[in-house]
Amino acid sequence: MAVRLNDAYMKAFVSQKELEAIRPQVTCAHQLLHSGKGLGNDFLGWLDLPRDYDKAEFEAVRKAAEKIRSDSDVLVVIGIGGSYLGARAAIELLKSPLYNNLKKDTPDIYFAGNTLSAGYLDEVLSLCEGRDVSLNVISKSGTTTEPALAFRIFREWMEAKYGKEEAARRIYCTTDRSEGTLKELCDKNGYQTFVIPDDVGGRFSVLTPVGLLPIAVAGCDIGKLMEGAEAARQAFAEDDLTHNDSYRYAAYRNILSRKGKSVELLVSYEPRFAMMNEWFKQLFGESEGKDGKGLFPASAVFSTDLHSLGQFVQDGSRVLFETVISVKGCGKDLLVKEEPDDFDGLNFLSNQGMSAVNRKAMEGTILAHTQGGVPNLILEMDAVNEYELGFLIYFFEKACAVSGYLLGVNPFDQPGVEGYKKNMFALLGKPGYEQQRAELEAKLKG
Amino acid sequence: MAVRLNDAYMKAFVSQKELEAIRPQVTCAHQLLHSGKGLGNDFLGWLDLPRDYDKAEFEAVRKAAEKIRSDSDVLVVIGIGGSYLGARAAIELLKSPLYNNLKKDTPDIYFAGNTLSAGYLDEVLSLCEGRDVSLNVISKSGTTTEPALAFRIFREWMEAKYGKEEAARRIYCTTDRSEGTLKELCDKNGYQTFVIPDDVGGRFSVLTPVGLLPIAVAGCDIGKLMEGAEAARQAFAEDDLTHNDSYRYAAYRNILSRKGKSVELLVSYEPRFAMMNEWFKQLFGESEGKDGKGLFPASAVFSTDLHSLGQFVQDGSRVLFETVISVKGCGKDLLVKEEPDDFDGLNFLSNQGMSAVNRKAMEGTILAHTQGGVPNLILEMDAVNEYELGFLIYFFEKACAVSGYLLGVNPFDQPGVEGYKKNMFALLGKPGYEQQRAELEAKLKG
Repeated sequence: MAVRLNDAYMKAFVSQKELEAIRPQVTCAHQLLHSGKGLGNDFLGWLDLPRDYDKAEFEAVRKAAEKIRSDSDVLVVIGIGGSYLGARAAIELLKSPLYNNLKKDTPDIYFAGNTLSAGYLDEVLSLCEGRDVSLNVISKSGTTTEPALAFRIFREWMEAKYGKEEAARRIYCTTDRSEGTLKELCDKNGYQTFVIPDDVGGRFSVLTPVGLLPIAVAGCDIGKLMEGAEAARQAFAEDDLTHNDSYRYAAYRNILSRKGKSVELLVSYEPRFAMMNEWFKQLFGESEGKDGKGLFPASAVFSTDLHSLGQFVQDGSRVLFETVISVKGCGKDLLVKEEPDDFDGLNFLSNQGMSAVNRKAMEGTILAHTQGGVPNLILEMDAVNEYELGFLIYFFEKACAVSGYLLGVNPFDQPGVEGYKKNMFALLGKPGYEQQRAELEAKLKG
Repeated sequence: MAVRLNDAYMKAFVSQKELEAIRPQVTCAHQLLHSGKGLGNDFLGWLDLPRDYDKAEFEAVRKAAEKIRSDSDVLVVIGIGGSYLGARAAIELLKSPLYNNLKKDTPDIYFAGNTLSAGYLDEVLSLCEGRDVSLNVISKSGTTTEPALAFRIFREWMEAKYGKEEAARRIYCTTDRSEGTLKELCDKNGYQTFVIPDDVGGRFSVLTPVGLLPIAVAGCDIGKLMEGAEAARQAFAEDDLTHNDSYRYAAYRNILSRKGKSVELLVSYEPRFAMMNEWFKQLFGESEGKDGKGLFPASAVFSTDLHSLGQFVQDGSRVLFETVISVKGCGKDLLVKEEPDDFDGLNFLSNQGMSAVNRKAMEGTILAHTQGGVPNLILEMDAVNEYELGFLIYFFEKACAVSGYLLGVNPFDQPGVEGYKKNMFALLGKPGYEQQRAELEAKLKG
């Protein structure tokens, strides 16, 4: 199996009896999910997506990616939350966090519309100067403030550079199938559109055109990505805690939460996982962080962060557990060479690959942290490639759904995200919010 | 004052009485720190550093930076933990997180030796191909595994490209004043060296040559940086909870910790703060995360992460509080223009700057999150520049020292970092670790 849960280091923290005790609850969560009778059942499209996805649209995504690769130096992806995290995570993992700096035969890819920072947007604009650009705008409604403002600015820039017609051939919108202001604009201007399915929420959307188009532009094989996800769909279809690693992972995190842990630290040993960590944090944080519940999702890249957060993990408040992604092979290896004078005392490593050293660092850290009282769950992967990533994504998605039902929440909504938006609109003077505005401004004045 | 603590939103969470109750403890912590009689008193060099720093060496740093800017396309900085976070944080904050991508008249700056990932190191090497490179190796001892291995590889690369003599003129070492294997190597090979003072720990070292040389190479005014820190040193010299915002911040975080909060989320509204967040996490996590104590340090950049972590903050487990960095002006502004057909419904924002929108998003979020039961401490800054950053750094350093004494720990050691290193050495077969190796390997086999 492409992703396996190794729970050998959990014995000191969770007993077999506890796993047996939660088994019926997992069965119940499984049945809720697969019967479509659980909370949030309007948003279960991700469950069979790896088998049932729209094959014709998939080919259209591939073709669009090919065109963008052939006529663009830069692709600017405009989206926020689930409309950018998955694509960025996949590209950095499969290619590199330094993707835009490295020499390559695919376009640079910049993400915009995921912040209200004018300085950042201005810099992305400056990186487009004098280069051929395509735009992928990703928004279900078209009215989300951050991407809508960025799109206003970039559309103007594109039309100034290319004229309205050629700009229209370089603007790709991933949006609602039939409704919403972005869809209307596309129809009016002739932008090519791709569909965000109605029954797939933002944080579960990386395997829809939301993620697929940018990932394909980066030169990744999105067919293999879907194959990996489909393999995971089959692997985790049965309700069996012993053999369903995705469910066992969900069970452990709920047991640890009920035993008082507050924080899950997702750890990897390769910098290229940093944005996958962020994708994970949205998936679990937004699915479970409600009704006063949920594990706070945090992340680290070791050994880098062993020199910043390592002290806390080893010996600070015992509020956390770690989920460690262990990858056998990842990218090129480099050999440690013999130094004639061994000035740094590291000749005992000579003729070993750095990845072997990295692996021993991981093993040593797992032993040290469990010794220090931090439960460690290990997710083992043999390699980093499209297939394995598709598998990993689905592993986490299914674990998240079952984990949310175990916790007793609706894993598919996000009502808390509206709070700041309403306040922001009121403070910005949006028509209809006049009374709220007065109240909020009074509060700000203390 | 360049950084001010606004605690107007704390009224619902911490009473004036509680602040008064902790006041004598703050006085005690202040006296411990300034008398040099507290735990970790060998490492108080940072306290008066902004006044007492070595002015001659400071000029040497400036001169070296000038030479590097004149003869190099790339500076590779080799260091881990405190030997890279401060410099990277300052450069990204003062210049840009896209610094290496943007057009500029200063060298690209890549950080290496902060990971055991061979793939990452190989990519940094590839970015140096065909370009003029200088190297800044930062390590107190010279034996820390990650930077030492990277230095082995980069030194060989430099000598192959430039020959031993010219390579020596392009290698700059920031290390111990007199001892350590790196210092010996520098003396032997004639590398220019800069001093890591004995009494300044890694996470407090950004205002020593550790941080100053890379920051100066990026074209930042390190004189202004020190001026800002010196202003903060003076501003926070007195033991007065009411007027010493650094101490009041330390007091609040301890009160919140004692009331059961487990996580501090450091928040900013500009992507350029992302690495400052990481610097902060090391400073507080490593200083306080010991003896089973400490707040888990986490971070976010809003509004980006309001679309991933926002749900949790608004409505998940009430385990956290937020410290929000609020900056009045930051970088270039962009104007929202009127759209003739207002397709996205955002014309009510027309003719406002995006930074005004960003500001209202912040105010709206603070009100929503406090309403949701999350205490919010606000750190107000007027601008982002060298002076303000120096002030902010010292603000956090002094708060951290006092906060650690309030918590009842030694804020200046990090004994827990050794655990994984010992295990790693044993597993890698370092001579002298034979018995431990056998024990660990038995554990790994389960």
